[in-house]
Amino acid sequence: MKKRFPILIIVIPLLFGASVAEPQVATDRADLLKQMDARAQRFADVSRQIWEFAEVGYKEVRSSDLLKSELRSAGFQLQEKIAGIPTAFSASWGQGKPVIGILGEFDALPGLSQETVPQQKARVAGAPGHGCGHNLFGSASAFAAVSIKNHLAEKKIPGTIRFYGTPAEEGGGGKIYMARAGAFNDCDVVLTWHPGGANRASVGSNLANISAKFRFYGKAAHAASAPDKGRSALDAVMLMGNAVEFLREHVPQETRIHYIITNGGGAPNTVPDFAEIYCYARHPSMPTLDGIWARIVKCAQAGALATDTRMEMELINSAYNVLPNEALAVMFDRNLRLLGGIHYTPEEQAFAEALSKTFQAEDGLRLGSQERISDIERSVSYASSDVGDVSWIVPTGQFTTATYVPGTAGHSWQSTACSGMSIGQKGMTLAAKVLALTALDLFTDPKQVQAAKADFDKKRAGHEYKSRLPADQKPPLNYRDKSPD
Amino acid sequence: MKKRFPILIIVIPLLFGASVAEPQVATDRADLLKQMDARAQRFADVSRQIWEFAEVGYKEVRSSDLLKSELRSAGFQLQEKIAGIPTAFSASWGQGKPVIGILGEFDALPGLSQETVPQQKARVAGAPGHGCGHNLFGSASAFAAVSIKNHLAEKKIPGTIRFYGTPAEEGGGGKIYMARAGAFNDCDVVLTWHPGGANRASVGSNLANISAKFRFYGKAAHAASAPDKGRSALDAVMLMGNAVEFLREHVPQETRIHYIITNGGGAPNTVPDFAEIYCYARHPSMPTLDGIWARIVKCAQAGALATDTRMEMELINSAYNVLPNEALAVMFDRNLRLLGGIHYTPEEQAFAEALSKTFQAEDGLRLGSQERISDIERSVSYASSDVGDVSWIVPTGQFTTATYVPGTAGHSWQSTACSGMSIGQKGMTLAAKVLALTALDLFTDPKQVQAAKADFDKKRAGHEYKSRLPADQKPPLNYRDKSPD
Amino acid sequence: MKKRFPILIIVIPLLFGASVAEPQVATDRADLLKQMDARAQRFADVSRQIWEFAEVGYKEVRSSDLLKSELRSAGFQLQEKIAGIPTAFSASWGQGKPVIGILGEFDALPGLSQETVPQQKARVAGAPGHGCGHNLFGSASAFAAVSIKNHLAEKKIPGTIRFYGTPAEEGGGGKIYMARAGAFNDCDVVLTWHPGGANRASVGSNLANISAKFRFYGKAAHAASAPDKGRSALDAVMLMGNAVEFLREHVPQETRIHYIITNGGGAPNTVPDFAEIYCYARHPSMPTLDGIWARIVKCAQAGALATDTRMEMELINSAYNVLPNEALAVMFDRNLRLLGGIHYTPEEQAFAEALSKTFQAEDGLRLGSQERISDIERSVSYASSDVGDVSWIVPTGQFTTATYVPGTAGHSWQSTACSGMSIGQKGMTLAAKVLALTALDLFTDPKQVQAAKADFDKKRAGHEYKSRLPADQKPPLNYRDKSPD
Amino acid sequence: MKKRFPILIIVIPLLFGASVAEPQVATDRADLLKQMDARAQRFADVSRQIWEFAEVGYKEVRSSDLLKSELRSAGFQLQEKIAGIPTAFSASWGQGKPVIGILGEFDALPGLSQETVPQQKARVAGAPGHGCGHNLFGSASAFAAVSIKNHLAEKKIPGTIRFYGTPAEEGGGGKIYMARAGAFNDCDVVLTWHPGGANRASVGSNLANISAKFRFYGKAAHAASAPDKGRSALDAVMLMGNAVEFLREHVPQETRIHYIITNGGGAPNTVPDFAEIYCYARHPSMPTLDGIWARIVKCAQAGALATDTRMEMELINSAYNVLPNEALAVMFDRNLRLLGGIHYTPEEQAFAEALSKTFQAEDGLRLGSQERISDIERSVSYASSDVGDVSWIVPTGQFTTATYVPGTAGHSWQSTACSGMSIGQKGMTLAAKVLALTALDLFTDPKQVQAAKADFDKKRAGHEYKSRLPADQKPPLNYRDKSPD
Repeated sequence: MKKRFPILIIVIPLLFGASVAEPQVATDRADLLKQMDARAQRFADVSRQIWEFAEVGYKEVRSSDLLKSELRSAGFQLQEKIAGIPTAFSASWGQGKPVIGILGEFDALPGLSQETVPQQKARVAGAPGHGCGHNLFGSASAFAAVSIKNHLAEKKIPGTIRFYGTPAEEGGGGKIYMARAGAFNDCDVVLTWHPGGANRASVGSNLANISAKFRFYGKAAHAASAPDKGRSALDAVMLMGNAVEFLREHVPQETRIHYIITNGGGAPNTVPDFAEIYCYARHPSMPTLDGIWARIVKCAQAGALATDTRMEMELINSAYNVLPNEALAVMFDRNLRLLGGIHYTPEEQAFAEALSKTFQAEDGLRLGSQERISDIERSVSYASSDVGDVSWIVPTGQFTTATYVPGTAGHSWQSTACSGMSIGQKGMTLAAKVLALTALDLFTDPKQVQAAKADFDKKRAGHEYKSRLPADQKPPLNYRDKSPD
Repeated sequence: MKKRFPILIIVIPLLFGASVAEPQVATDRADLLKQMDARAQRFADVSRQIWEFAEVGYKEVRSSDLLKSELRSAGFQLQEKIAGIPTAFSASWGQGKPVIGILGEFDALPGLSQETVPQQKARVAGAPGHGCGHNLFGSASAFAAVSIKNHLAEKKIPGTIRFYGTPAEEGGGGKIYMARAGAFNDCDVVLTWHPGGANRASVGSNLANISAKFRFYGKAAHAASAPDKGRSALDAVMLMGNAVEFLREHVPQETRIHYIITNGGGAPNTVPDFAEIYCYARHPSMPTLDGIWARIVKCAQAGALATDTRMEMELINSAYNVLPNEALAVMFDRNLRLLGGIHYTPEEQAFAEALSKTFQAEDGLRLGSQERISDIERSVSYASSDVGDVSWIVPTGQFTTATYVPGTAGHSWQSTACSGMSIGQKGMTLAAKVLALTALDLFTDPKQVQAAKADFDKKRAGHEYKSRLPADQKPPLNYRDKSPD
Repeated sequence: MKKRFPILIIVIPLLFGASVAEPQVATDRADLLKQMDARAQRFADVSRQIWEFAEVGYKEVRSSDLLKSELRSAGFQLQEKIAGIPTAFSASWGQGKPVIGILGEFDALPGLSQETVPQQKARVAGAPGHGCGHNLFGSASAFAAVSIKNHLAEKKIPGTIRFYGTPAEEGGGGKIYMARAGAFNDCDVVLTWHPGGANRASVGSNLANISAKFRFYGKAAHAASAPDKGRSALDAVMLMGNAVEFLREHVPQETRIHYIITNGGGAPNTVPDFAEIYCYARHPSMPTLDGIWARIVKCAQAGALATDTRMEMELINSAYNVLPNEALAVMFDRNLRLLGGIHYTPEEQAFAEALSKTFQAEDGLRLGSQERISDIERSVSYASSDVGDVSWIVPTGQFTTATYVPGTAGHSWQSTACSGMSIGQKGMTLAAKVLALTALDLFTDPKQVQAAKADFDKKRAGHEYKSRLPADQKPPLNYRDKSPD
Repeated sequence: MKKRFPILIIVIPLLFGASVAEPQVATDRADLLKQMDARAQRFADVSRQIWEFAEVGYKEVRSSDLLKSELRSAGFQLQEKIAGIPTAFSASWGQGKPVIGILGEFDALPGLSQETVPQQKARVAGAPGHGCGHNLFGSASAFAAVSIKNHLAEKKIPGTIRFYGTPAEEGGGGKIYMARAGAFNDCDVVLTWHPGGANRASVGSNLANISAKFRFYGKAAHAASAPDKGRSALDAVMLMGNAVEFLREHVPQETRIHYIITNGGGAPNTVPDFAEIYCYARHPSMPTLDGIWARIVKCAQAGALATDTRMEMELINSAYNVLPNEALAVMFDRNLRLLGGIHYTPEEQAFAEALSKTFQAEDGLRLGSQERISDIERSVSYASSDVGDVSWIVPTGQFTTATYVPGTAGHSWQSTACSGMSIGQKGMTLAAKVLALTALDLFTDPKQVQAAKADFDKKRAGHEYKSRLPADQKPPLNYRDKSPD
């Protein structure tokens, strides 16, 4: 008997035939792109402003206000404070089917403040910075939304374009709360992208993720004079940890379980009456993860049972793995190839060369590769994202553009620097154009929407999305005030 | 060998005044002792025969038959197969109150076969031997019972004398099953003794003890190709063990918990679907031990809960700590002093000197101390005995005589050697006389019975004996066939 | 950053061009096969005799004698008792290069005795049986060796053919001791096969494996009266086990570590002065496994360190993963296709249908598939074999034939039944022919030997075989007497 | 709150005969006491000022300055900054032998700020308070030192009186650093006392204590994408904790080991490269504790060994158990009985009654008991103190006076309230008088000094004091800034 790692074996459907090469289509595309070139600098400026705001998850007040202002002035109807989150919103234009959504993020990361120079130098020491390029993410998506809206209006093409302002992707799970509130239910297709080091569409996936804090309540006693009177919450944490370690052998090998002890007792003199463990579990499949998670909860219950303590669990986050969409990836790939890669000015080249000397590229990407379109990504990443939940509700397509110097690691001062300057802005403009062209394909060719939906139904294989959030759980609006991430 | 901790602080009541020194009493005693001297050799021979039988717990068929035969021929009425145990019996004579019981044991220990020589030399290699001197124990008690019966009959003293043949003290818990069957319920006082290295009465105690096998049932799977399909019973054992270790800090320091893993899986290639842990817990107080034991059971449940396995517990043994009786100890002490210690012949002295060179006395007893009466024992031993259960039902008195060369460890080839020869038999005769004189005190002076009962009520402080054995548990009649002890 | 499971990405070289299709080659093949048809029944009878002997590892005296007799009478020179193992031998014929080895196994499995009927029925209850078809394995390999020898002699083709009688594959590691003794050092190529449910060549691999017993020595003490005087060997086992569990997160996910506790203490009353854990570790790469194993040994040392006990490790087994050989697989595949699959008689078909109803095929093989040649196996099995060590010394090719009804699990009564009858013997004859034809290719076309060596050098990538056995370790000739497997 | 176990069985020597009752002695005592009555209010005011300063360990700058000022103006010679500690000092007067030392403490406890009212009410919320009465402790001792100095000067009695200002008793171990610096080496006798709920001399002891932070250094890695690249410092902490739990069974039952996890990793996403455990161990005997501590260190080393991490230990504290002195206790007891207990005014009585209603006395002391002198304390407390080290260098006597309403727990708002008002000050004055009278006994009767030394030598039984502090360890002057205690 043998066991193999489940890689994705996918046959690329040849959806595109003669129709998409017709003259009318080509003309429409040219009009759309010309219109976008005229608007590019404005959104580059927007992205720079958000980069300077550098607001962390759920605190992106000025960032979201700026995007809302752009969209409102372009004629979009806004729905604000979705799911009770001050910075979550959608902006819609048009009516009827299809409803095409575009996701935008705009939260920064703690501690990554950086100037746009090729050496580590904070703008404000210790302050947040856009190390994941979400300033570009939100701006490109709004840029695409405004552009396609103008095109639909001009060409009188029916349908609805909608921008989603989705806060706190970095650990706060904004989209998951928006999903629970039904924000994506009437969409036909969702398009999204992410800043990166290469230009490529993706049918890759990632890991479903559930995390929680397990809190144990015991009974304090003097540790020297009356340890038998105490019931140690730390003992419960230790035993839960031990139990989780024993669990590792008996879950699928792709599973990841990791934990830290966030409270290990107050003073050695006293039997701890409180202790806390913060645990993540991940797996490429949410239903499998559900089963694993249930066993982790039993480990926590066992810790309490064996130590005569009480356990409470607070769910912190829960994200589905991304359900990839073959049809949308093929569309993104085609439009990427239509538009071509990114070319640096001599100044940008000099910056890129200087920056390249500060890191060793782990993904094998070399300087220059930004000029090409890479093959469609097909692997499973060991990361997690709240895009995952959206992708199980609506067919969702994903791609990256080279907003960073190739080889740059995410969440680094280098990616922060690129995100605030022309290199990042070029990648952002390419992303906006790919989003707009692909939306245009979907608005004008119902078969493309059908293909996306067909692949969605095939891949989810009957699984119905169900939010893992408890009904009464509120968004952790202040999660950046204290929690580690 | 015993380790003891001194906790009992007791004022010895002065029960004995002028009455016991009256001429009639002295005469009666002299008559009784004279009668016993005539019978001593017969019971020395009985003890030697049982020493040669050397039958282990619940298999003492010939040993118990020999004692029954002696008692039956002396006119006692036998009740056999008490509690469904073939070798458990009682033998009664007389009628009415008081009912005075005398306990007798007769089981041997595995692997201790030994000749009556002062060097290690097995009679039958690997065979059992009387390393705890129970051949003397049962014989002395029967000797006393027969003697007091003759005295009561002759002097027409009312009351009932009863000998209890109690099997399998060494790990089998015969008295506990007899107690559950109600065998001691109508007794007023129980007298007992034990072979040892000194002549002394005891108000010491020992540890209450509960033991069980915890069995875990999981699901087998190939450990290399499908470990995630398996549920490991060994993991459950490991986690239960871990939990018990964490428990140690939070129980009173006098507690003892010890376990072994009696089944740790069948083959490394296979996720174990069965594993077993065998655990003892002890504490000087049974009610406290009950609470500790409940927490150990929770540790076992936690092991199963965390590993998705099933747990079953089989209680193996349960013994109360001994409830000491001050009044009876004082009576024993007085009679010991009346009779005096043990004096060796030159041959015995030579044997004793040779034997003494083979060990280092841990209890500080030196050769020669057998000639004296030691002070009343007041410490708590870290051993357990099924006499404990009896002592919570009836006021029970205990003492030892020097049946071994002083300093000899119990359960040794040295103690086995002494138990089969004149040194042991001298101690046995002393014990029989102390038992008989004390029974005589009780039959003739109701105040003595009242004093024993008063101290019993004071010490148990309202605690009512309740057998810890499950209602459906049968005596482990074959426990010596396989179980470690 | 992403991590992917390392699958084998291989380009099949097109080694075979016009040369192998030349008329002379075809004629030679026909001669060889004709000769083999005449000898097939004799070796079917040999296989049946070994099936009836059913001798377990290192005890295969009659089985090896029978094969030696066949080879000696065919003119082979025998080297016996290789590596001090009574049943390990080689039989050579010819001289000079190339030296082509063929492996033969012949050990049975405990408890699998079975009649050749389609329901579970032991020939001798509890006796061993050929559940892994090694009776066919050894016989087919000897059959091929004798046949190619006759062909070489007749055609005056230079080179040396050598049969290896390799005992105790099932857990005893015979080839590993033979390898340490240098038995394979002068070979140019080794050919081997294995009974199975399909006809296919293999470039698959399996897991390198190291196993050992870790023994801990502490200090006994009475667990109730002097636990502080004891040093628990069981504690050391528990802590080593715990440490191994914590290790799981920090080794590559393809690693397998599994253990049982083979001695968990003698009696609850006594602090255990001895305890033992039996641990396996596996990984697709031996150098990686070496690093993991070193950390497991540290876990054992840590167990001893923390508990004041002493640790001794006895290595039980150590097998390299199989180093697959692309060139040899292609040759096997070609010869398999030349010969075609296996066709059942009506009686065999009826047997196969009846047998199929007794199991559910896990590998997806259906009845009828034995008539075809399956695609080359390219996956990694989570099993281990002592062929692994040979494959890192000499280029080694592997294939299976359908000796079992397709879908039959190995190590089952079903596979035992097939191995003793015509279904198994047909697969065996096909295997012998594939071995012989492939040996002929190698003897007559030096480029084929070169191709095998080139792929060997490429795949081992500089790694030099080094036996993991300690220099003083003797073969565990009596490992079947007691050890679990 | 203290839990004690009775192990010391001591015969009180009758040291005092006719001599101490001589008229001259009585007169001298009267003079001394009269002088002290005149000075009592001044030192009550000093104690109130220190109570208001409420400075925590090693930060007692104003408190120590105030005491220095009193002593300097009384003519004492000051030695400041002993052992490099800003607030550690001694103040000496006189010359030659004997040298009699009196200890004074003055550090407050975090979070115990309280008004002198019988309900919980902070003076400054969250600020420190004198919950252990050290404001009284230092003031009474200085009061006694000044008084005896005046008496010696007036009566021309030879010898040296020395006050020790010893900071940071509450977890900082000031005296241990002073001891290492040799500050107590030339003393003949040291006298000390402590605020409490009863008036009694002590031959009790407490627990030797060693504590340290064990820091583990591993290697960070992304916990989902590369856990095999990480080496978890938290794993090391978990394994050390587990090992310590297994150790508990195999140390003497009076041992106490307790730990908390002060750093359990930074973020679940990352394999922790740092983690820390803070561990205490205690036992009534320092040499025994040394052996236990060595085994705890091995547990830590085992944690590092098994996880491929590095361990560093920082010793935090180390205190000897108190070596009690029988002769000095008898002197204290006699002088306490000479002076009598404490009598409340109606206002104090009303306060005491109100306060008594806010707690349940665990030590059985009832209101009114402050009027009596209790029997000499003979038990072992499960606390630790840096007086322990002093007591192994110099014969050291200890007693308490009722500075708190009887039954009040230490380290409570209630004890803080009492320490700032007349109830505490009355106890303080009694303490000062007992210290002064006892010093007078020692200065005037060399046999008393000899008796103290004789008992010291007998009790330490050859053990030579050796500081457990590493040679290079500096006092943790900022330990209150962050560390839990």
